[in-house]
Amino acid sequence: MTVNPLAPGWLAHPDDANALADAVWPRHSERTAEGVVALAGAAATELAREFGTPLYVVDEADARERAAEVKAAFDRAFEGVGSRAHVYYAGKAFLSIAVARWVTAAGLNIDVCSGGELAVALAAGVDPARLGFHGNNKSLAEIDRGVEVGVGAIVLDSVVEIERVARAAERHDRVQAVRLRINSGVHASTHEFLATAHEDQKFGVPLAEVPEIVALIRSHPSLRFLGLHSHIGSQIFESDGFAEAARRLLAVHAELLAGGEVPELNLGGGFGIAYTGADEVTPIATIAWELARVVAEECASLGIPVPEVAVEPGRVIIGPSTVTLYEVGTVKDVTVSVAGSAATAVRKYVSVDGGMSDNIRAALYQADYSVRIVNRVSDAAPALVRIAGKHCESGDIVVRADYLPGDVEPGDLVAVPATGAYCWSLANNYNHLGRPAVVAVRDGIARVIVRRETEDDLLARDMGALELGAKVISDLRRDASADDRPGHRNGDK
Amino acid sequence: MTVNPLAPGWLAHPDDANALADAVWPRHSERTAEGVVALAGAAATELAREFGTPLYVVDEADARERAAEVKAAFDRAFEGVGSRAHVYYAGKAFLSIAVARWVTAAGLNIDVCSGGELAVALAAGVDPARLGFHGNNKSLAEIDRGVEVGVGAIVLDSVVEIERVARAAERHDRVQAVRLRINSGVHASTHEFLATAHEDQKFGVPLAEVPEIVALIRSHPSLRFLGLHSHIGSQIFESDGFAEAARRLLAVHAELLAGGEVPELNLGGGFGIAYTGADEVTPIATIAWELARVVAEECASLGIPVPEVAVEPGRVIIGPSTVTLYEVGTVKDVTVSVAGSAATAVRKYVSVDGGMSDNIRAALYQADYSVRIVNRVSDAAPALVRIAGKHCESGDIVVRADYLPGDVEPGDLVAVPATGAYCWSLANNYNHLGRPAVVAVRDGIARVIVRRETEDDLLARDMGALELGAKVISDLRRDASADDRPGHRNGDK
Ligand SMILES: Cc1ncc(COP(=O)(O)O)c(C=O)c1O
Ligand SMILES: Cc1ncc(COP(=O)(O)O)c(C=O)c1O
Repeated sequence: MTVNPLAPGWLAHPDDANALADAVWPRHSERTAEGVVALAGAAATELAREFGTPLYVVDEADARERAAEVKAAFDRAFEGVGSRAHVYYAGKAFLSIAVARWVTAAGLNIDVCSGGELAVALAAGVDPARLGFHGNNKSLAEIDRGVEVGVGAIVLDSVVEIERVARAAERHDRVQAVRLRINSGVHASTHEFLATAHEDQKFGVPLAEVPEIVALIRSHPSLRFLGLHSHIGSQIFESDGFAEAARRLLAVHAELLAGGEVPELNLGGGFGIAYTGADEVTPIATIAWELARVVAEECASLGIPVPEVAVEPGRVIIGPSTVTLYEVGTVKDVTVSVAGSAATAVRKYVSVDGGMSDNIRAALYQADYSVRIVNRVSDAAPALVRIAGKHCESGDIVVRADYLPGDVEPGDLVAVPATGAYCWSLANNYNHLGRPAVVAVRDGIARVIVRRETEDDLLARDMGALELGAKVISDLRRDASADDRPGHRNGDK
Repeated sequence: MTVNPLAPGWLAHPDDANALADAVWPRHSERTAEGVVALAGAAATELAREFGTPLYVVDEADARERAAEVKAAFDRAFEGVGSRAHVYYAGKAFLSIAVARWVTAAGLNIDVCSGGELAVALAAGVDPARLGFHGNNKSLAEIDRGVEVGVGAIVLDSVVEIERVARAAERHDRVQAVRLRINSGVHASTHEFLATAHEDQKFGVPLAEVPEIVALIRSHPSLRFLGLHSHIGSQIFESDGFAEAARRLLAVHAELLAGGEVPELNLGGGFGIAYTGADEVTPIATIAWELARVVAEECASLGIPVPEVAVEPGRVIIGPSTVTLYEVGTVKDVTVSVAGSAATAVRKYVSVDGGMSDNIRAALYQADYSVRIVNRVSDAAPALVRIAGKHCESGDIVVRADYLPGDVEPGDLVAVPATGAYCWSLANNYNHLGRPAVVAVRDGIARVIVRRETEDDLLARDMGALELGAKVISDLRRDASADDRPGHRNGDK
């Protein structure tokens, strides 16, 4: 065994570069006797043949089981301290009609944060009362639609939204339940881009201003104040941050009880998952239990009843359920100088048929992933690889570093696990690549839940073909004050 | 005037936070007497009213003029040294049918790097002979299609592609012109993610291996070797990197002349533009002239004729032509601790109705942009602002830091200039937001060149509505070797 000096410190040299790490692969993955990886009972090779690559493959039972387990963990933990929990699946991680049905069938609610996410949840037939509606800058139209369809709660992010939601509630003759998002000053020890409750960020209101703001909310008969909300970041492994946020929020929550009911406390999402074998994840049951203990202790010392607690996990439910299948197109040994020495070493660049268009997390968050060959096993000595995409950009990397059997070659099928969260949802059409299909597999039965994007889809919004006919939408050379213009609307923005 | 301690060093406190910096705004932008900004003769307020926000507004004449000027600059410079230049517009920056027609009408060729980009160029009616086809991992289907339609040149990125292209050329009974991409070891002094020719990256072949590889290319009668290709990075302000790459490539180019013709040298794209008033850009004519001088000198000292030189600029042509219009939804003063002191200062977070879905460059490359209010002027004291989007993520920032009149408020229309390159092309549907329309404006006439993405578009690929009918695509529980299965195709992957 030779350790490649280019390998990052956290990456262990594998005994077997074919092994599927339990913590990283969907639950119902296994290598069959023929060496092919089966995903929820379906051979990866068959999936690639039927649906093409790149392909997101979701282990449906894994996602459903995790949803149910997260719910059970919080239910049990908060029942244990004489209260209740509510789990909202954070749709931003990955939302499609099928996923919305899976998580609601498991008893979860859904957190949506735009009119588009709301539309998906409604198309799935989810009871609007089970939706929480987030966003630092919801449009008036989004607020109106949310109130109109009867979403369970709207999270107010700033003072200006109080009036906006109150007006919409009056218009629709409803009493709208609302939460108030807090910038608690707690930020989880995670990558800077993912932390959302430290001081220098756009979300929420400062704790110090909460009593005044809640008084304003309560002054509107069309609003019902549910409680405070905080979200301290994402991909968090420890419960300390949540506990600290809970303590800070509860101190103010206790004050607010003097002015009326505060039935609930919402601690947001952010529970981490394993992306590589090096990630050590605290079980969600442990986190739930610790949160319940902290909340109960804090309430006891404040002399207040334990509120109902809501959480909004996304990644921990859908992230581990999915792998992305790619076909290898080229393999290139690149000789690289080793930092801090005169030596060189070889990094094997394995280029696949997708890339930063289907998984931008490596480029955007310097996220690490792992990879395996799934069409065969090989006992070739493990080689340090980097999985690159096919985009015209050097930052187009899917897996920064892992070991694969050194005979990896064009035509091999590789899979990158733990791509269920924030991959499809951030997918783009860079270099006019169509986005992959999403296939859900259960007991060997595969079903397309989002179809592949075609060249026709990509061209469908291009109006250029009309150029010769010069589709002039409006002649703005005219004086803007000329109201007699056909179709001219007044009003100034 | 008070300088906000949170302002980055490069950001000057403005005398007038309404002024449109010439270097950053499209050429035909001006503030009218009423204080509204007119873009190519169309009032920003009218554009927003007609087409909605967010909106990409392209100053069509600006883009066409820059395309023509870049071409003229390289033509003149290389004619001056007794040779010729070819300018390929890099479609990856932003490609639509209209843009493809503008740049080819200005006499440029187009560089495409996927089947999708090829499809757009063909839909625009571009003569395939004017296309260069790039990519580190073109699929066999893409290569076949490129050869079949007759693209002018294919850039070979690795040895394995030689056979692939040769086979396709034989199949279609053509002689396919090819370039060879080099990993020259030169990397431009720019952000790491944008540098594409330093050692540790996926593109090209090492210089040392070129003679052998070119011999292999020349051994195929179905291939015609055009010359070497290098691309050293993006958003580059100095010509040193290009000059160094040219020198390294020419040394090998000279050797190759012994074995046959080498008509061309391709130096790629990467010429920088001004994103903020602090960026000082070298005029493209200066860069072209310096490149011509270096190439000519180097050829003289090598005793070889000056080859034709090709370049592939994207950003410098389309980047400055476009502004993104947004409507302000919320404004929030956030008190932030000043690094390295006990003091605090206020950052004004201005949230708009788009964000990292229409411009991911700030989050992905830590890119800086500037911003102006465009529906009015104001003499309120300038305040340090951050333009945030409406996504559920703290990294969702469009403009990290600029000054706006301190009375910026909800309902204001703001514009972010220099968003023509790598914004629409990397746009995504995070949080199920539809992508904005792209409107081209010329002499006050506006025309939609790419239409806005609707909620229906977003749901169109979601197959979840079929769930109750359980659309079972394939039953993979069956033995994979059971060839009698309906629709089963043989072959192993
Ligand atoms: C308010 C809020 N809730 C929940 C989540 C979900 O986070 P995760 O998927 O990490 O659990 C996010 C993520 O950005 C969020 O912003
Ligand atoms: C091979 C190649 N040519 C040209 C370009 C265009 O670069 P720019 O838009 O910076 O000019 C790129 C950008 O990635 C590239 O990879």
